[in-house]
Amino acid sequence: MSRCFNFSAGPSELPLEVLEQVRDELLDFRGTGCSIMEISHRSKAFTEVHNETQQMLRSLLDIPEEYDILFMQGGGHMQFSMVPLNLMAPVSADPSRRGGGCYIVNGTWSRKAAHEAGRLGGISIAAEGDETNVPQQQDLRIPEDASYVYYCDNETVHGIEFNYVPDTGRVPLVADMSSNILTRPFDIRKFGAIWFGAQKNFGIAGLTIAAVRHDLIGRAPENCPVMLDWKSYSSKNSMLNTPPTFAIYIANLVCHWLEKQGGVPEMAKRAAEKSGALYSVIDASDGFYSGKVKPAFRSRMNVTFWLKDESLNDLFVEEAAALGLKNIRGHRSIGGMRASVYNAVPTEGATQLADFMKDFERRHG
Amino acid sequence: MSRCFNFSAGPSELPLEVLEQVRDELLDFRGTGCSIMEISHRSKAFTEVHNETQQMLRSLLDIPEEYDILFMQGGGHMQFSMVPLNLMAPVSADPSRRGGGCYIVNGTWSRKAAHEAGRLGGISIAAEGDETNVPQQQDLRIPEDASYVYYCDNETVHGIEFNYVPDTGRVPLVADMSSNILTRPFDIRKFGAIWFGAQKNFGIAGLTIAAVRHDLIGRAPENCPVMLDWKSYSSKNSMLNTPPTFAIYIANLVCHWLEKQGGVPEMAKRAAEKSGALYSVIDASDGFYSGKVKPAFRSRMNVTFWLKDESLNDLFVEEAAALGLKNIRGHRSIGGMRASVYNAVPTEGATQLADFMKDFERRHG
Repeated sequence: MSRCFNFSAGPSELPLEVLEQVRDELLDFRGTGCSIMEISHRSKAFTEVHNETQQMLRSLLDIPEEYDILFMQGGGHMQFSMVPLNLMAPVSADPSRRGGGCYIVNGTWSRKAAHEAGRLGGISIAAEGDETNVPQQQDLRIPEDASYVYYCDNETVHGIEFNYVPDTGRVPLVADMSSNILTRPFDIRKFGAIWFGAQKNFGIAGLTIAAVRHDLIGRAPENCPVMLDWKSYSSKNSMLNTPPTFAIYIANLVCHWLEKQGGVPEMAKRAAEKSGALYSVIDASDGFYSGKVKPAFRSRMNVTFWLKDESLNDLFVEEAAALGLKNIRGHRSIGGMRASVYNAVPTEGATQLADFMKDFERRHG
Repeated sequence: MSRCFNFSAGPSELPLEVLEQVRDELLDFRGTGCSIMEISHRSKAFTEVHNETQQMLRSLLDIPEEYDILFMQGGGHMQFSMVPLNLMAPVSADPSRRGGGCYIVNGTWSRKAAHEAGRLGGISIAAEGDETNVPQQQDLRIPEDASYVYYCDNETVHGIEFNYVPDTGRVPLVADMSSNILTRPFDIRKFGAIWFGAQKNFGIAGLTIAAVRHDLIGRAPENCPVMLDWKSYSSKNSMLNTPPTFAIYIANLVCHWLEKQGGVPEMAKRAAEKSGALYSVIDASDGFYSGKVKPAFRSRMNVTFWLKDESLNDLFVEEAAALGLKNIRGHRSIGGMRASVYNAVPTEGATQLADFMKDFERRHG
């Protein structure tokens, strides 16, 4: 069959231009006579890709020099451990930070992060959402001696996105931006660290990126496993050992694609259009479709909704797939539908899905 | 230019048939309308690849059911931490195991592994090689209460390979087989665990595999970071979180390729031919080329040698490259030359390199 529109929550759609370039240079990477997959991470050809990717990401996200950009492996769960291991231990210069991590919990991923940090040390909960909303600034209880405050900027399972950046005073703020990085401008100077997996808006699974302020690197305890210490990456330009070279190459192509499209501001515009098209159909459907998240906190990335008559679910999914609109089932833990409209999903994909939803409603409403 | 013969020590050459298949199905994976990179790790299409890869690897290596096959990330350095974290802590049923890890050190990688284990707990050294040899059975000092004995089966930097499997009695044996897995038959029943990175003989960087005997899983301490506990992989079929899906797909294609070629016995035959062709030229060169490793311990994977007149090094590398024989410089820590002849390097590549070496000697000897 031909290429479909892919609403997978991750790993998810890549720009067609990126895939075509990968295909075209797969057997011979730019005259080396080898595939990019076959060359040493210390070769000139690869280190150029590696360094350019860091530089382009820095530029796309406006990350100043006082933040290090780290390329890691292990996905979100590895960061769930690395954040507390790297930030819980107070440096001797700052003995007041003994309160452990403080977590804002408003969905599956922030809950998992808090759970792992709780296993590794003492934590507190700043606030809990009820999976329809985002806790607001005035509801956050942050201990003065907290080591850091952690939250997940976009929760993919329920489709909930923060509509503000928490103010945590002098306590470093850490954000999981796995599912909405590069989809709207933000000021990293408000954060001590951000991290994200690559497989939604920055390429493929197997690469995890963090941007960490210098002064927060080097705080891990003496016996921290070497690959869990941000310093191991910071001090070796993310090449203490062989990095996931192919995933970094894909990220490089995604950077070029993003730049050509108009960068993060353009992605923000498209995200509003794509998610807006779908939420409009839901809101105009008089209950045929309904979402659970309060409008102010609706994710621009993961549009979740339920059919009033759930016996139509399978038909809905089948008819959509027949039109090339794929992977729209909700997360197995909550059911319903979920259309993820990450950067690489064309606006046309969202409008075709919106048109299909209207048509399906007309025929079954 | 056209495809070269690639003697890179890793990431290294892939079978051309594998690369061609990747290219051909890159935009549409077997009728899904998506690239394999773009689909959920929980989709039917991907889980079939994942499970088949485990099964084929089990079959190729003759791994019985009492061993779990784990797909992980983080490379060798992550296993340097995971081995001690998972095996040092004695289970209550076996309180005699308190001696920590016991390491056979005979090269760069076993030394790094011992260093990391020493940071995380108490270790002892069974024996040390001098980088020309492998410590023999009678030289191993293994404490009776050791938690495990660890060694690296093939040291890539100097090109040293074990010519026997250490007998460690009832102490579990653990081997790093990153650089010679799938290149000769071995009996895994002699081991508690083996592990290897994928980027030499099993695909691309970003995937690390272990085969661990059931009874050695579940011994990590309570506060072990979740992604460093072998149990997290064993209990979730290596899908606690998103695995490196594309690297697993490549490993799958490599399994099919290996099977078609005749499996591990055929690879052993070719490894002997390829490395033999190169060592023969070195030994017949009357000192024009020389190796440092004693013949009994010469690696069948990484053929290291030095030119008598090192001022010819650059010319040697340039002339080889002009013939399409690439990436033959030695590791930056020891210099000289290193031709890595992993499974995917065709016999023709090794014989062409041998012919070039003879010709170069004739012209400059």
